[in-house]
Amino acid sequence: MSTFPQLDAFRGGNGVVRLVGHRGARGIMPENTMEGFEFTIGIGVDALEFDVVLTRDRVPVITHNHTLLGSATRHPDQAWIQEGDLKVSQMNFADLQALDVGGLDGETVYGKRFPDQAFLCNVRIPRLTDLLELANRPGMERVCLLLELKSDPEAKGDTLTQRDVVEAVLAEVREQNLEQRTLLHSFDWDLLDECRRQAPEMPTSFLSELPANLDGAGEESSKSVGPDYAALTTSLPQAVYSAGGQMWCPYFQDVSHDLVAEAHDLGLLVTTWTVNEIPDIERVIDAGVDGIVSDYPGRAQRCILSKGMHWEG
Amino acid sequence: MSTFPQLDAFRGGNGVVRLVGHRGARGIMPENTMEGFEFTIGIGVDALEFDVVLTRDRVPVITHNHTLLGSATRHPDQAWIQEGDLKVSQMNFADLQALDVGGLDGETVYGKRFPDQAFLCNVRIPRLTDLLELANRPGMERVCLLLELKSDPEAKGDTLTQRDVVEAVLAEVREQNLEQRTLLHSFDWDLLDECRRQAPEMPTSFLSELPANLDGAGEESSKSVGPDYAALTTSLPQAVYSAGGQMWCPYFQDVSHDLVAEAHDLGLLVTTWTVNEIPDIERVIDAGVDGIVSDYPGRAQRCILSKGMHWEG
Repeated sequence: MSTFPQLDAFRGGNGVVRLVGHRGARGIMPENTMEGFEFTIGIGVDALEFDVVLTRDRVPVITHNHTLLGSATRHPDQAWIQEGDLKVSQMNFADLQALDVGGLDGETVYGKRFPDQAFLCNVRIPRLTDLLELANRPGMERVCLLLELKSDPEAKGDTLTQRDVVEAVLAEVREQNLEQRTLLHSFDWDLLDECRRQAPEMPTSFLSELPANLDGAGEESSKSVGPDYAALTTSLPQAVYSAGGQMWCPYFQDVSHDLVAEAHDLGLLVTTWTVNEIPDIERVIDAGVDGIVSDYPGRAQRCILSKGMHWEG
Repeated sequence: MSTFPQLDAFRGGNGVVRLVGHRGARGIMPENTMEGFEFTIGIGVDALEFDVVLTRDRVPVITHNHTLLGSATRHPDQAWIQEGDLKVSQMNFADLQALDVGGLDGETVYGKRFPDQAFLCNVRIPRLTDLLELANRPGMERVCLLLELKSDPEAKGDTLTQRDVVEAVLAEVREQNLEQRTLLHSFDWDLLDECRRQAPEMPTSFLSELPANLDGAGEESSKSVGPDYAALTTSLPQAVYSAGGQMWCPYFQDVSHDLVAEAHDLGLLVTTWTVNEIPDIERVIDAGVDGIVSDYPGRAQRCILSKGMHWEG
């Protein structure tokens, strides 16, 4: 037993590698949608990663970009929105509900990255509360939430905004009594400090991506909100440990067997993202990670089984 | 309006190419399972292809092979069944219910063909009635069934067995009042004759695969139950038309623009199978088919959209 019971669902070892659906299952279903989360749970993957941003009227909603992705968002007439036009923090929740996020524009760089993603109509940006309510339905007791707090680069260092975001998210998690099935997860390590101040009863998960890696094509970068990696005087696992984190979530290209071992020696869990290609999935399993975040949870299930391992245990 | 209203759901043209989920969505979900059918409907693909075989106690069940596939079937203790051991026609429905068909053995030739297929536990071989009941639930009015009657090569030409299979299937379709949302579909053109005798109110769909094509690796072949293609004195569309069919379903490698045009001139619909790779999907769209049967319905949606077309209309 750990102090934080939800960590058990993310702990590997003894033939277990945990599996986390990335934004639901972005390779198969529209990202950050209830439809995608239900698909992921339906195939037996109970750990969900997703992104939370605050609307102007302070509703935590589940979407990745502060400025809505033109290649994944349609107006009510099904026309694609203009990239860069719609910023969540400047919209009310009711306005967001007019938009359809059920499909990708296959003509765009981002759309081409996920050619198997189904194309649905009349899919809405969910509220955080919608997913929390799903997790509280009967039979959903195993569902665990890797709740990524998105930090607006334009508000970086704005402690009032940070406090506000964390307060709004925590209020909903507490309202639904899900403090023991949620991890607070971010690239913004300062924001995670604020999380630990406001919710010492909840574990924190530290995302990292070394600057040499390229950002995902067509996506908002999270690099500017992360720590100054060049200024770190310790290893990443040591830095996460010193910052009070329970989980380290490195980009999969930044993972090695030695770093995983170092993190484990410090008592940290290691969950790596976003691992989609079979050779990469096999490599991070061999490196000893506790868990894998993938856009293709079915494919990752098969890779884990092919190693004689399982994602439950 | 056609005489058979269900044909409208399979008619292409005017920017529409129909989309049919193969065994549900075999590339993503376990084949011929309720979980797979629900996924396919959930992404907006309402036409379902699936296979029906009769148990010893005359229950029509949904599974592809007469002899259950070793690479897709587990005993209650999760051990894979021995290939060739379990023949559906020699088992009672209750015995089938002990088996788990939720996943593929990735070590097998067949399992390796579908590396993205999710791995589920406690998934049962459905009865035909289970799917018919799903199609009758509120909100499922658009669901159409391409019901493939599997003809046992060992019983080929056995008219009593054929009559029996058709009777059992029709009894259930009629019981659920789904004669106008179902097509009777087979490689065995003699069996389709029997269908037309017993159910003149329902359309028939003639599968074909020219002998030069290779069978799908790891699957039971349907070639021995088909017509003697070498002995045909007409084109395939002409042969289907002469046999009284409403739809011709050629293997995708056997499709050409000219054959599709010939079929259309005869008043036939053309639905081609099983089209999984993007260049193949694009080619059959360009050849003018009415519809596409795919293991990857999400991928096929995206290909259809990329041509400026849609699968609904």
